Amino acid sequence: MRRLSPIPLTRDNFLPFGDVIDGETANPIVINQGFAQRFNDLARIDVEAGGGAVNVSLFRGQPRPRPIAIRLMERHPLGSQLFMPLQDRPWLVLVAADVHDFASYRAFTATGRQGVNYARHVWHHPLLVFDADSRFLVVDRKGPGNNLEEVWFAPAFLFDLTP
Amino acid sequence: MRRLSPIPLTRDNFLPFGDVIDGETANPIVINQGFAQRFNDLARIDVEAGGGAVNVSLFRGQPRPRPIAIRLMERHPLGSQLFMPLQDRPWLVLVAADVHDFASYRAFTATGRQGVNYARHVWHHPLLVFDADSRFLVVDRKGPGNNLEEVWFAPAFLFDLTP
Repeated sequence: MRRLSPIPLTRDNFLPFGDVIDGETANPIVINQGFAQRFNDLARIDVEAGGGAVNVSLFRGQPRPRPIAIRLMERHPLGSQLFMPLQDRPWLVLVAADVHDFASYRAFTATGRQGVNYARHVWHHPLLVFDADSRFLVVDRKGPGNNLEEVWFAPAFLFDLTP
Repeated sequence: MRRLSPIPLTRDNFLPFGDVIDGETANPIVINQGFAQRFNDLARIDVEAGGGAVNVSLFRGQPRPRPIAIRLMERHPLGSQLFMPLQDRPWLVLVAADVHDFASYRAFTATGRQGVNYARHVWHHPLLVFDADSRFLVVDRKGPGNNLEEVWFAPAFLFDLTP
């Protein structure tokens, strides 16, 4: 079994892969007559290639059996893809600089208050959650063209998430 | 005191003002090898006027004293503005077709699983929450130009939210 210990997600360690949407680590602006703080401009939304536009969706994810069998990785050549959790529960992020080089894989545990925005072309695994019916707001791309590349592994490699 | 009973938010009754982002009322697509459902394309993001781009932010809102004193309404002439709650707690939406005509005001109670996307030009009150430290993901516009119009009321009118 492949072993890759997830580390806590931060803006710095995720920088090669995209943005972390995290109100704990930004300086807010006070707005709304003092009744709100705004943590401004946290993600680079990059969806206009090939005539694309912003697509706002809700995802409801289910946990996979442990150890997690990694059967595929995917990336979106035409747009960024943002996931923001809608419950305060940790979840998991798996990315790779080079999909064919296991040494380039990185796993992160995100808190339930951290979202991520995968940059265009960044290899990542589909949504990985620990809890049934985990809900996410997703901001990605709609429009013409093929915005999905997948690499499938046969056999799957098993992924030991033990920290 | 003005009295305006909030009614439960639905896609239909909010249609003149924008979109409701609600996974309970859309037909999902099954994705991610069966481990997720996607409720697709729930909001019209309209931020390109005047050279604008998408701005993703986090808001943290605080409740106002009751009865709520309405001192201003605002609208964004250059872009839509989407609010998605990040905790499963109800919140309040106050909009108006004509900011100077009280008969055109509408109040809605949103569940903690419902977001709204105010269309461009739609008069609305800043964020109204019931609970301290209520967190929202916000998708609106950044870019040149003045994207804020406000109308202030002096004296404020008090808003009785009794259902």
